Amino acid sequence: MPRLWNETIEAHRRDVHQAILDTTAELVTERGLRSVTMAQIAERTGIGRATLYKYFPDVEAILVAWHDQHVAGHLQNLADARSTAADPATRLHAVLAAYAHIAHEMSHRHPGTELSALLHRDERVAHAQQQLHDLVRDALTEAAHAGIIRADVTPDELATYCLHSLTAAGDLPSTESIGRLVTLTLAGLQPDER
Amino acid sequence: MPRLWNETIEAHRRDVHQAILDTTAELVTERGLRSVTMAQIAERTGIGRATLYKYFPDVEAILVAWHDQHVAGHLQNLADARSTAADPATRLHAVLAAYAHIAHEMSHRHPGTELSALLHRDERVAHAQQQLHDLVRDALTEAAHAGIIRADVTPDELATYCLHSLTAAGDLPSTESIGRLVTLTLAGLQPDER
Repeated sequence: MPRLWNETIEAHRRDVHQAILDTTAELVTERGLRSVTMAQIAERTGIGRATLYKYFPDVEAILVAWHDQHVAGHLQNLADARSTAADPATRLHAVLAAYAHIAHEMSHRHPGTELSALLHRDERVAHAQQQLHDLVRDALTEAAHAGIIRADVTPDELATYCLHSLTAAGDLPSTESIGRLVTLTLAGLQPDER
Repeated sequence: MPRLWNETIEAHRRDVHQAILDTTAELVTERGLRSVTMAQIAERTGIGRATLYKYFPDVEAILVAWHDQHVAGHLQNLADARSTAADPATRLHAVLAAYAHIAHEMSHRHPGTELSALLHRDERVAHAQQQLHDLVRDALTEAAHAGIIRADVTPDELATYCLHSLTAAGDLPSTESIGRLVTLTLAGLQPDER
């Protein structure tokens, strides 16, 4: 049965939308944030400039949408890591390890600090950061209730510590070194027995 | 005895140089990086534009110099923290605590992520980061030799972990919470006894 016309239109719109995001990320990586124009994006995507402007008002809006999509994917990975593990200790380890790998990937694929500065002014990015913080804090709260991590520091502060510590993964070269970073971070969470 | 003319000139130059740095940092904090001009800086410093251009070619160069000065001060604080402590454990604690306080202060006084992106392209800033890393790594190497921290991870990786973990101080509200962060970070360095 052929798709309804409306569905075909909708699927086409989604494809164009995605092509614009991917092309823009590509161009920014190649040429730097300031030198990419709407005309270049339209040309490489293979659509007219007028069409491009029906989707997005400017380059900045495209980058924010591209970043939103990545962040949503990352948050989903973390939620998946948490839901597939069997007990609080395994869940905490899974969440922290997943975040370390995301931090590593982002520092290597993110098109530069200039873009990062632009995006981090956006309030949706602040919202995503908050979701990330909450997700890690919840895993920590659960682990604290189970008695497997220290209870002398609030889960909120512990989450702040974990998220900063794990961004070190961006400066580490290998899966092994990232594994060791997760170990160090978890060691910091252990109850103080002295 | 009156100062020699050359010394008077030199002292005057240093004063003007410092006034330019301070005024520029002030203006950038008030108005944002992109809206500050050389003309505004000259006016608020109370010097002519032609004089300003004898000191610096552009706003970016002033900010780099201002940042250099802060970083040099911070590195000096860390070196002092290290040299006044009596033993490897106290020295390591002093260095990490000093860095946590610097990270806290920087996140509250630093005029925004846009400036941060600009500065972090500068290779002198990369050099200062390397000096910071080396200073922390040396304190860790000494502590590892004394057997008070884990030896299953290299001091280089441990320094990367510490420096990232302690930047969490920028998101923490109080001296007490920063103290707890230093405790967590140090706990991550403890030998693994399981």
